[in-house]
Amino acid sequence: MKIICSKSELLKKISIVIKAVPAKTTMPVLECILIRAEGGEIRFTANDMELGIETVVEGVILEVGQAALEAKLFSDIVRKLPEADVSIEADAAGKAVISCEKAIFRITGRDADEFSAIPVVEKEHPVTVSQFSLREAIQQTIFSIAPNDTNKMMAGELFEIEGDRWKIVSLDGHRISIRQITLRESYDPVKVIVPGKTLGEIAKILTGDAQDDVYMYFTKNHVMFEFDKTTVVSRLIEGNYFRIDQMLTTDYLTKVMISKRELLDCIDRATLLVKESDKKPIIMDIKEDSMELKIDSQIGSMDEEIAIEKEGRDMMIGFNPRYLIDALRVIDDETVGLYFVNTKAPCFIRDEQLSYIYLILPVNFV
Amino acid sequence: MKIICSKSELLKKISIVIKAVPAKTTMPVLECILIRAEGGEIRFTANDMELGIETVVEGVILEVGQAALEAKLFSDIVRKLPEADVSIEADAAGKAVISCEKAIFRITGRDADEFSAIPVVEKEHPVTVSQFSLREAIQQTIFSIAPNDTNKMMAGELFEIEGDRWKIVSLDGHRISIRQITLRESYDPVKVIVPGKTLGEIAKILTGDAQDDVYMYFTKNHVMFEFDKTTVVSRLIEGNYFRIDQMLTTDYLTKVMISKRELLDCIDRATLLVKESDKKPIIMDIKEDSMELKIDSQIGSMDEEIAIEKEGRDMMIGFNPRYLIDALRVIDDETVGLYFVNTKAPCFIRDEQLSYIYLILPVNFV
Repeated sequence: MKIICSKSELLKKISIVIKAVPAKTTMPVLECILIRAEGGEIRFTANDMELGIETVVEGVILEVGQAALEAKLFSDIVRKLPEADVSIEADAAGKAVISCEKAIFRITGRDADEFSAIPVVEKEHPVTVSQFSLREAIQQTIFSIAPNDTNKMMAGELFEIEGDRWKIVSLDGHRISIRQITLRESYDPVKVIVPGKTLGEIAKILTGDAQDDVYMYFTKNHVMFEFDKTTVVSRLIEGNYFRIDQMLTTDYLTKVMISKRELLDCIDRATLLVKESDKKPIIMDIKEDSMELKIDSQIGSMDEEIAIEKEGRDMMIGFNPRYLIDALRVIDDETVGLYFVNTKAPCFIRDEQLSYIYLILPVNFV
Repeated sequence: MKIICSKSELLKKISIVIKAVPAKTTMPVLECILIRAEGGEIRFTANDMELGIETVVEGVILEVGQAALEAKLFSDIVRKLPEADVSIEADAAGKAVISCEKAIFRITGRDADEFSAIPVVEKEHPVTVSQFSLREAIQQTIFSIAPNDTNKMMAGELFEIEGDRWKIVSLDGHRISIRQITLRESYDPVKVIVPGKTLGEIAKILTGDAQDDVYMYFTKNHVMFEFDKTTVVSRLIEGNYFRIDQMLTTDYLTKVMISKRELLDCIDRATLLVKESDKKPIIMDIKEDSMELKIDSQIGSMDEEIAIEKEGRDMMIGFNPRYLIDALRVIDDETVGLYFVNTKAPCFIRDEQLSYIYLILPVNFV
């Protein structure tokens, strides 16, 4: 195999596929990026057996063939080369020569034939969304997955499509995050659980451009995302997702409208006084025109008052400040609505149209 | 005590003195920043018993007094406050209230009377240099101290002043770094060893402005640096510094003039193939018009050719690539001169005027 590509193109495409290179593996060949030059196209592939990424690389093929180069070393070498054309040559024994201007690197790759191909997903009936929407929806929900929970469904996010409504849900034992997006057209129903790791990596690769689309293909066991000449294939998590509808209610006894920025800054300040290990709640004391936020720990205490608009009765309720921060950070609205039933029931942070719903369980305090 | 200062001023001054707050100490009061409001001035002080920093803070004194607040907590609280005026109030028992707009923090400080004052250094005959020169000289030599060596003098840098010549030297067992600066006037001789830690912290505090001066006062056991209403006092390292003059020579058998950027980039690339643990040298093969650089390790090999101008005979010599990189990075010249005697003798990287000299011992290779 012999190919020539610009350094910048190589670097860009390595940074995409390297996200599917496993940190640890019992199959050393998976630590490699597979380079294939055939059929007039150069492709890079990486695969950790759960997530596979393949992307097309611009360049010239001087000799067809393939090579498997250790991903980190390949990435480091390319990054340090001058900004110029890079030639990559490999023989059948895996010996590779990477040269650029007067610099010549010789390294040994692995047997490319041993590389595990990524699963083939039939390209039928794609669901189309913009890169922007997909990236936003992931970033606005992924913080409330629980990757290490014994319940493996908490490591993923529910993707549910009904007609032109697309719902993304994540939850751990203390909170639920939901985003609902209206699609450009209607589709057959889909209800799958996509691993959080896959979504986290995709969010990093997507340019987030509202003009560029992503095509999503769902099969029984896999989901494939296609965009920018890149294909991401991931296994799905098996099982039935939690029934969350019964936990959601739009009834409330107290409604608070508050400046998102003021509330977020205040809670952020308060967390200074909380060590990771102790579980000090932040207490919201909701009165007629203002909310007083209080925290009291071994380190010290803080209180602060924020102006609010309130409907319903006064109340005092405690929360894990981290959960409030996570939700508030990903809400774009300047003013947010908090809905409460009582001090034992979850608080809902949501908009009128329910385009987002963040359910957070309160914490006892004395 | 009660003072009012802007958040930005507080943050700036905390970031200066916090550099003298010890990470570990058996005297908990030293984990604090001492705030003193008296004689019409607000001062912050920190002291790890080897290095002490004191700085004047702009603000209004409403009530004279002092307080000792845990440095990290104080810094974190101030950083998270809104951009506005901050009031700091403390009673004799150490209870402190930090308030800004509607946010009120209550924390407990320590007994300010227990705080160790920084040593008094008589302000006589300062040596004056620009902030720019001092910062540069430190950054251009500090990488070759050996802070953990059993020989404690290697943890410091020699400051030697003779007339209007100021020489800064650092060395470990494998290399020597020297910068020589011409001062604006002549001074009585000085020859002291300043701890590397002190210099590292000062380099971070100095603005590096060529217009602003630093006044250096030397006594038998201490050095004091004064600039921008900030005073840094440090103990000196006792003992006689190494006699380095006998190691320096301007004789050579081979002289190479080479592009600094090309050489640095090439060595930087080569280090990819060297793991921290193994000590693979980079080999310079010096011929008539070119230098070939080669490295060969378990990971792979690299070679690259760079055009040079050469005087003297051809030679092949090996170095620890890290040492070459450290020296080349802090040299501003576009073309540098390398001077060699033989493959066992040190290489000198220096300019004609000897404003900088980097001596690096070669490494055996087979």
